Amino acid sequence: MPDTTVDDVDRIARAAQKAFAVTVRADDATRAAWLRSAADAIDADAEGLVELAARETALPANPRLAGELARTTAQLRLFATVVEEGSYLEATIDHPDPSATPPIPDLRRVLRPLGPVAVFAASNFPFAFSVAGGDTASALAVGCPVVVKAHPGHPETSRRMASVVARALTEAGAPDGVFALIEGFEAGLALVDHPVIRAVGFTGSVRGGRALLDRAAARPEPIPFYGELGSLNPVVVTPGADAARGAALAEGLAGSFQLGAGQFCTKPGVVFAPVGSALEAALPAHLVTPPRLLTPAIADGFAAGIERVSAVPGVEVVATGEAGDGPAPLVAATDVPTLRAHAHELLEEVFGPFTLLVRYASPEELEHAITGLPGGLTATVHREDGEDVAALVTRLEEIAGRVLFAGWPTGVAVSWAQHHGGPWPATNTQFTSVGAAAVRRFQRPVAYQDAPADLLPPALQDPNPRGIPRRVDGALVLP
Amino acid sequence: MPDTTVDDVDRIARAAQKAFAVTVRADDATRAAWLRSAADAIDADAEGLVELAARETALPANPRLAGELARTTAQLRLFATVVEEGSYLEATIDHPDPSATPPIPDLRRVLRPLGPVAVFAASNFPFAFSVAGGDTASALAVGCPVVVKAHPGHPETSRRMASVVARALTEAGAPDGVFALIEGFEAGLALVDHPVIRAVGFTGSVRGGRALLDRAAARPEPIPFYGELGSLNPVVVTPGADAARGAALAEGLAGSFQLGAGQFCTKPGVVFAPVGSALEAALPAHLVTPPRLLTPAIADGFAAGIERVSAVPGVEVVATGEAGDGPAPLVAATDVPTLRAHAHELLEEVFGPFTLLVRYASPEELEHAITGLPGGLTATVHREDGEDVAALVTRLEEIAGRVLFAGWPTGVAVSWAQHHGGPWPATNTQFTSVGAAAVRRFQRPVAYQDAPADLLPPALQDPNPRGIPRRVDGALVLP
Repeated sequence: MPDTTVDDVDRIARAAQKAFAVTVRADDATRAAWLRSAADAIDADAEGLVELAARETALPANPRLAGELARTTAQLRLFATVVEEGSYLEATIDHPDPSATPPIPDLRRVLRPLGPVAVFAASNFPFAFSVAGGDTASALAVGCPVVVKAHPGHPETSRRMASVVARALTEAGAPDGVFALIEGFEAGLALVDHPVIRAVGFTGSVRGGRALLDRAAARPEPIPFYGELGSLNPVVVTPGADAARGAALAEGLAGSFQLGAGQFCTKPGVVFAPVGSALEAALPAHLVTPPRLLTPAIADGFAAGIERVSAVPGVEVVATGEAGDGPAPLVAATDVPTLRAHAHELLEEVFGPFTLLVRYASPEELEHAITGLPGGLTATVHREDGEDVAALVTRLEEIAGRVLFAGWPTGVAVSWAQHHGGPWPATNTQFTSVGAAAVRRFQRPVAYQDAPADLLPPALQDPNPRGIPRRVDGALVLP
Repeated sequence: MPDTTVDDVDRIARAAQKAFAVTVRADDATRAAWLRSAADAIDADAEGLVELAARETALPANPRLAGELARTTAQLRLFATVVEEGSYLEATIDHPDPSATPPIPDLRRVLRPLGPVAVFAASNFPFAFSVAGGDTASALAVGCPVVVKAHPGHPETSRRMASVVARALTEAGAPDGVFALIEGFEAGLALVDHPVIRAVGFTGSVRGGRALLDRAAARPEPIPFYGELGSLNPVVVTPGADAARGAALAEGLAGSFQLGAGQFCTKPGVVFAPVGSALEAALPAHLVTPPRLLTPAIADGFAAGIERVSAVPGVEVVATGEAGDGPAPLVAATDVPTLRAHAHELLEEVFGPFTLLVRYASPEELEHAITGLPGGLTATVHREDGEDVAALVTRLEEIAGRVLFAGWPTGVAVSWAQHHGGPWPATNTQFTSVGAAAVRRFQRPVAYQDAPADLLPPALQDPNPRGIPRRVDGALVLP
């Protein structure tokens, strides 16, 4: 299929803008029904979608892609629940207070949809971070039409998914133009530049994300860009944890860093373990032959990353697996002085089945090593009861969006409390791309001053006809 | 006093970073006490501060500057209340749910301070949007150290205020480095570039804001830039309102557009009134001689703006006042076709005592005119009961952060529901710079997965020791 032309991008964007006139007025129950209709339609076509995605991506159909599809439809349904619950509107009412400094008039604030949103699909999650993924679901949830730029790594899956979603939305009564798919690099740039587009959601590489971020910022009217980019996801294993269960941790780590051939944004890319750890000894037994990587560009990037890391003096390969359709998985190791001396080469994400073990000789050395880490989506601590990790956690929460105790960072639950974000280069914003709070990216506040009741949105009318939690004169009030 | 050197900026920024290690751990009550200490100290020095600011800015001491100072200390105290109330932490707890797709572990999310913040003070509010203004107060409230770049329009006021605030913070036990003032253009740039700075707050012109926004975005690690920039603040007067009270509206409008010599970001810069309005007839009687404008650059900008507007064929001067220390106030008028044909010249903010009257001949023409308006902080409608303005309001809420019914946009209440923001060029973000929600600009979420209770922040511990509103398993729970 040929790339979408720039003219077609314009036509599609204008249709999205026209649809916005309807979606901005659609009530919460209506939009929730749209999302559930899309989820049901995707579930109904699950088998075909999974089969197609497996062929295009080389990811295993079961449990990986089938699970990802179920996650995708659960996500659409969660956002339906989020809009029905109503807190996402942040409805806030201040009654007049002439005694305040300065005096307070009748002021009422609510969040409104931004307008048409551009979504750039990811390579590594053909369902959950792609055409009907979290960005699309959270934007539609709050009333923003969506134009998705397909990832070229799974074009047929993208088209089939787009067709399923578009049909389901239409059947549920959503307006024409509320959802569309475009393809091609130049079409994507034209979309970011298009004046009706009010925000961009992106999941991908630091390099690609940075280019689009700069482009969104350089528009005559700059728009928010929500990039989920690169992450090292450091893991710290304490001496106590290694002594108690080093071999089990090795198995867990191997499963996590090789999951999906290491093509997860939450892959543990650097692991701090004591010198001479049981974890290191047990790791080689758990390397598995990966499927081919998702795209030739990712395969090239992996090879280059491995070469960059391996070329650092003081880095050694401690375990390697068999190459198959994909490259051989690899574990390299180094010490803290080398990590610090070569931070530039060693602390850049290598996307694929690789992790770097950093052997530390003392708690001081560990602290030293942690201090130089860049921002990331996650940081994980494995420790035993009684080991004091408070100072370590203090440092990790400064550089990560999610701090895990036990467990592994791959696998991102979709829930109210989830945060999938973090300091640069994990993301460039203070928002999450997974979980209930993701909707806030596509909303902006409007305050109404001394408005007649009949001109207020229902969320702000005194009798609370929407039945939602609100803040009234400073105090939260439940419906 | 000489400009702050780049070396001194570095020293000050590093001290702020060091202070952050303390402020990030300081509990809400402690930070609330810091804010109240600053407010009390400012109130205690009010007379001296107002006198100094009046001398430097030419703004009247009473009621203007005295009122602004009271607003500034009320604002500090509001943010103390906001952090004590605790909702600003957005504490969210999901207990494990193995039946979810994918399974949900124990996940708990809270907002944390970003780190040291740079604040660029405004020219036109030497107190409320300056050294101890809303940006400073909201950043300190959530635990972010602040480095303020003084506005050169009121340097002595800035220094005196900084010294009052710094002493009060120290006396209240805040750490060294938590607050500092720098001066000079190059020092400001060095501050935006400094690696420890995590966000920038700015109130000023579109041109200056855009330059700093681009600079913040171009850093190796881009940081959020919160710019409060330019705004036209359109006012619509319906035929009914003009017939009922055109003369009173003229008086109100004249008071609003000439308030502070028209140097308000919320000054009504364009007013839509029916052809032959009573408002237009009554306006000339209310022009007053303004004080000198705040800075030579603002005076030059005003002269250039007046010239740009006056040069458009089809624009006529309908009222002008006496020049004094400042320029003569001016009202120009035009029709809708001219406005649309010359939108570029006519729809750019003219900062100072000027407003543009646009005479409309029919509701259709009004709608036509409104459609071309840029984004702004406010939009105001004056109507009579029974006049249907629903479609008009729909359009205005798309382009404004605050929609007023009756009243005038100058005068921005500081409250829970306030929103001071809006589509570009009013701001470049979805946040407010005034009111309780302003703190969210300086926070980022962190989620804790399967964390031991003793390593969780108090806000997330099961017994709710902080006693704050939280979301537990999807439902809001009040303390």
